[in-house]
Amino acid sequence: MPVYYEDVEVGTVETNGDYEVTREEVLSFAERYDPQWFHTEPDRASEESPYGGVIASGWHTAAMTMRLLVGGTLADAATIGAKGVDELRWPVPVRPGDSLHIENEVLEKVPERPERGLIRARTRTFNQDDERVFSMIGNVMYLRRSDE
Amino acid sequence: MPVYYEDVEVGTVETNGDYEVTREEVLSFAERYDPQWFHTEPDRASEESPYGGVIASGWHTAAMTMRLLVGGTLADAATIGAKGVDELRWPVPVRPGDSLHIENEVLEKVPERPERGLIRARTRTFNQDDERVFSMIGNVMYLRRSDE
Repeated sequence: MPVYYEDVEVGTVETNGDYEVTREEVLSFAERYDPQWFHTEPDRASEESPYGGVIASGWHTAAMTMRLLVGGTLADAATIGAKGVDELRWPVPVRPGDSLHIENEVLEKVPERPERGLIRARTRTFNQDDERVFSMIGNVMYLRRSDE
Repeated sequence: MPVYYEDVEVGTVETNGDYEVTREEVLSFAERYDPQWFHTEPDRASEESPYGGVIASGWHTAAMTMRLLVGGTLADAATIGAKGVDELRWPVPVRPGDSLHIENEVLEKVPERPERGLIRARTRTFNQDDERVFSMIGNVMYLRRSDE
């Protein structure tokens, strides 16, 4: 059963995990999309980076979070995508070997159009030590039920 | 010559491009990180999606934008990453065959710590028809010169 705009309740909290972060994936994502040395050069990062080693691209962290959302809250959602995101933050770096899980909380419903509404939800991503490595507020378009 | 915090001027506008968006890359990114049908199933998307065909994951658009930033403004920047992003928007979908370019404008400098400062910059991504497909305001940490 698809989850339509009408089915979503403000205050609902859902979780999903875990996503295992491999060194190979950290390097290959960064080499393709974010080739900065503190993401792609483990030796130099160990010696010179303030993080003490190579860390995942923030966009990789966002993408892994999305994968957990699609496997969780969004798996049955009647959505056609998101308009945007507010307050995206990377407070703690993600490192090879980390294991990530997410928590998604519905903040607000906005009845935008006759055929769809906006769900505002805060998604937070944590590592195996429950440190928050990522958070954002998403504005996701959900279809409405057509009750005919 | 690395570009330090002191070297960045508010109001500076830089551009970079083009990034050619292939169908293969749209599908493979989405299959891995955002496996929703309007990203991964071209036939169904052509028939049922309001977009009339498969579109790129918004996180893929963000990642391609990052690749253009790293090849442009950030190529010589003395940066150690970003704290976060505000007002991320996806106003127009990105489709296979699109060609993307970016424009980056420095909005503000915040002298955060003795050893580093924050550069707030608006990045906008356009397709070959100069439609804005993506925008965000990034908060990037730049190192300061140590003048000894």
